[in-house]
Amino acid sequence: MVSTVNFERHSPDVYGAAHPKALLKAIHEDGAFLKPLENQHVVSIDQFSSEMLLQLFRLAAKYESNPERFSAALQGKVLISAFYEPSTRTRLSFESAWHRLGGDIMSITDRSSTGIAKGESLEDVAEMFNNYGDCVVLRDSQAESVHRMMNTLRIPIINAGNGIDEHPTQAMADLYTIFKWRPELIERDLPAEKRIHIGIIGVPGKMRTVRSLLKIIAHFPDMLSEVSIIHDKREQALFAEGQRESLEAAGLKITTYTDLPAVLPALDVVYINAIAWMGDDYETFGNRFKLSKASPLKAGAIVLHPLARGEELSTNLDATPHNWYFSQARGAVFVRKALLTYMVQRGERVMDVI
Amino acid sequence: MVSTVNFERHSPDVYGAAHPKALLKAIHEDGAFLKPLENQHVVSIDQFSSEMLLQLFRLAAKYESNPERFSAALQGKVLISAFYEPSTRTRLSFESAWHRLGGDIMSITDRSSTGIAKGESLEDVAEMFNNYGDCVVLRDSQAESVHRMMNTLRIPIINAGNGIDEHPTQAMADLYTIFKWRPELIERDLPAEKRIHIGIIGVPGKMRTVRSLLKIIAHFPDMLSEVSIIHDKREQALFAEGQRESLEAAGLKITTYTDLPAVLPALDVVYINAIAWMGDDYETFGNRFKLSKASPLKAGAIVLHPLARGEELSTNLDATPHNWYFSQARGAVFVRKALLTYMVQRGERVMDVI
Amino acid sequence: MVSTVNFERHSPDVYGAAHPKALLKAIHEDGAFLKPLENQHVVSIDQFSSEMLLQLFRLAAKYESNPERFSAALQGKVLISAFYEPSTRTRLSFESAWHRLGGDIMSITDRSSTGIAKGESLEDVAEMFNNYGDCVVLRDSQAESVHRMMNTLRIPIINAGNGIDEHPTQAMADLYTIFKWRPELIERDLPAEKRIHIGIIGVPGKMRTVRSLLKIIAHFPDMLSEVSIIHDKREQALFAEGQRESLEAAGLKITTYTDLPAVLPALDVVYINAIAWMGDDYETFGNRFKLSKASPLKAGAIVLHPLARGEELSTNLDATPHNWYFSQARGAVFVRKALLTYMVQRGERVMDVI
Repeated sequence: MVSTVNFERHSPDVYGAAHPKALLKAIHEDGAFLKPLENQHVVSIDQFSSEMLLQLFRLAAKYESNPERFSAALQGKVLISAFYEPSTRTRLSFESAWHRLGGDIMSITDRSSTGIAKGESLEDVAEMFNNYGDCVVLRDSQAESVHRMMNTLRIPIINAGNGIDEHPTQAMADLYTIFKWRPELIERDLPAEKRIHIGIIGVPGKMRTVRSLLKIIAHFPDMLSEVSIIHDKREQALFAEGQRESLEAAGLKITTYTDLPAVLPALDVVYINAIAWMGDDYETFGNRFKLSKASPLKAGAIVLHPLARGEELSTNLDATPHNWYFSQARGAVFVRKALLTYMVQRGERVMDVI
Repeated sequence: MVSTVNFERHSPDVYGAAHPKALLKAIHEDGAFLKPLENQHVVSIDQFSSEMLLQLFRLAAKYESNPERFSAALQGKVLISAFYEPSTRTRLSFESAWHRLGGDIMSITDRSSTGIAKGESLEDVAEMFNNYGDCVVLRDSQAESVHRMMNTLRIPIINAGNGIDEHPTQAMADLYTIFKWRPELIERDLPAEKRIHIGIIGVPGKMRTVRSLLKIIAHFPDMLSEVSIIHDKREQALFAEGQRESLEAAGLKITTYTDLPAVLPALDVVYINAIAWMGDDYETFGNRFKLSKASPLKAGAIVLHPLARGEELSTNLDATPHNWYFSQARGAVFVRKALLTYMVQRGERVMDVI
Repeated sequence: MVSTVNFERHSPDVYGAAHPKALLKAIHEDGAFLKPLENQHVVSIDQFSSEMLLQLFRLAAKYESNPERFSAALQGKVLISAFYEPSTRTRLSFESAWHRLGGDIMSITDRSSTGIAKGESLEDVAEMFNNYGDCVVLRDSQAESVHRMMNTLRIPIINAGNGIDEHPTQAMADLYTIFKWRPELIERDLPAEKRIHIGIIGVPGKMRTVRSLLKIIAHFPDMLSEVSIIHDKREQALFAEGQRESLEAAGLKITTYTDLPAVLPALDVVYINAIAWMGDDYETFGNRFKLSKASPLKAGAIVLHPLARGEELSTNLDATPHNWYFSQARGAVFVRKALLTYMVQRGERVMDVI
């Protein structure tokens, strides 16, 4: 290999690292809405109110506006980062959030070498965690694991993806990105012409990221004109039992499509994700749906993807203004910083108004 | 999965997190007894005196009484946490102890990806460790590994379980728990009626936790009326060569039983553990011995277990006052904090009287 | 196992931990030569000048002379330690360097559980790293991986061994050791009688450590009378295309030998290493070449080895003054400290003169 590296590297443009200051300004700080998070478990988007989410996003925007600030907010706190289902991306996102706030971390990156693999119960593992750390981040392929651990945990646990069920902090990062893109969307009674049409390529009943995303946007029905689910024709069970009804009851207008090009030009936000957890392994959905520079995207539309991506999302979109998926990945760290800060009762160190 | 999680979690009772203040008061602080630990290896209970152990327990109780204090005692110190035999529980206990004192950690969680697996000698690995850290915690399935590393180590190493041999800090946690339960047991020449009867379900010759426990209680023969070993009838070699003789010479009155219900009502402390290291793998002992709420336990008796547990210890004991095994797991962190502080010569930062 | 451990450990001699103060004195501090390193990638020795290397060695010697100093230089900085090709030794060397300067670390110790194993592109992984850390250390079995990551990285990356290509920080540690041994070698126009004869047992075209070592000594041709490559007779392709020509153009006088005993008595520095990366696996070279106390080493000659060693380097040399390989391993930590400090723009915290 002939090396042509030198020390004159140009600084590339930071695609999608959109400034969060507009969102910061749009939300009035009120830490009282975050107090219920203190020392509590975070398992589902169901636990959150719209006010709580807005305050979380405000704190995230505050962190993102000034990443070096508050670097000692979690000093003396120890995180147990338990990734029984391995995920380097999500693990590092949480661990980065924690380190950036000055906390220490103990990681479990693999289930195979743990007591669980030898038959130890999750309840006993949780009891052990009580003695070792101040907070647990758990990713597991079984939906019930987080619930079983909660039985004996006296320190807060955060669900970083539990099988087919939920991935609440991913959904928070998704919505945070949308609000950074258009801060006026947080307003109640938004006039019809300002509302957005979101398209979600995926299967709400089987994909935890889609499930959590739908739950979180249902907290803000006023920002939406329509939510379209784009799915493969052969997909039989698009929604889980009661899922669609519950979302519609919250005020979402849901439509379904099997023809992506037909609906794409109408979408303001396109959410794409081809991977879903199915029982014991991953399955790929909708791999006939692909987005690229050639796709008929609306001018000004943004594309979101929880990453890692497969062939469904072309890298030729990376350098276009449609790319907000990198901003989404970046924002996830700040959303997690906000949530963790309150879970371990250090909100008073980062809020100007309590 | 229907989520019923909300933010109104009740605070469960902390079973067995008994207050260590009584023990703290019972021991007069004298750091001089801990000075010989400075920059020294810790491999076996044989190295310790009763005075040294009491001062370690005092420091552990001091830490446990005020867990947030001394959070910078190990600042700038780097631990090499080398678990060639994987053990999440023990690894996290040591790492938590170190982090709680403000130190940094580098972990090896698996032997397979290391140079040792490719044939590098333990002596060379130890030489490497000299350059990288200030202390080594070693768990290995071979008893001789810690001894081989000591040949070239110039930083202190602590034995976190070496095959069938010893697990000194586990034994310290066991005895620390007993002393927290009844601080008067530390007194010399304890009157006969105050002495306790300990029953140990296990095989002293084959189980490292039992071996180390017997060694450590032999430093305090005055607290004991009797030590009963409860074992399977088919067990041929209960003790290693010279083991029983040496314990009796130290002043222990040892009896053996094969019928648990016969002796159980007489026991003040019941130590149970079904797992033992046998050559290259684990073996389960005495799995016909089981403890549960239905067992004829003496009123006020406590149960100890090094955990993780199998079927030998029913979870229906967890909510009873017999459960001191959770306190034992909790206390292990503080005992390790005390030991590590002195090994890396930071005693002066945590002692009131030097 | 009968334990004979007590707390009266003698302090063994620290072989080869030669004092770096002579080197420190010999180089005049001038941080300006290190400024080009700020926020830049380090992939190859080709990027460096002799002045830059000398200033790096000076800073390394400054760190080594007073290891406790500057323990907060990297406070708030997060390292991503990505060892897709596992190497405990190199990983811990980098991580120790970072921790000693007060930074935090997130480790990836295995490729198998990462997104890369599932097909995620290195470019996307690098984009993710931008959001999580301040610097990346990468070890990978593919030479091109570091180059692919550089395409999307906005934080600096350091090459910790890329397949068959290079291992620049190892070469820096090698040369740093030679300069500590004889600081006068840094002088230009060194008289012939003071120049040294280096012998390298290995295959320059196939071994990344040898490749990088030859590149780095080519920056200091004045210190060398001769460079001898000692290789197996059956070795056909000793050099890569253009490699020998390029080194000779830089001023090295290169000779080759297949008979080690014939040349050994003439060598001032003997560099030995039997392991080389070959495509997808390791291969052992020249295992008929062995060094031991019985070898006809010149009085005062030093032996270097990047470690881990195999049978090619006898442990009976460890206690002799020829052993500078332990000093070399020790020095690597300080060289890495120096390089990392500048890469993450914290030079001003450790330099007296800027």
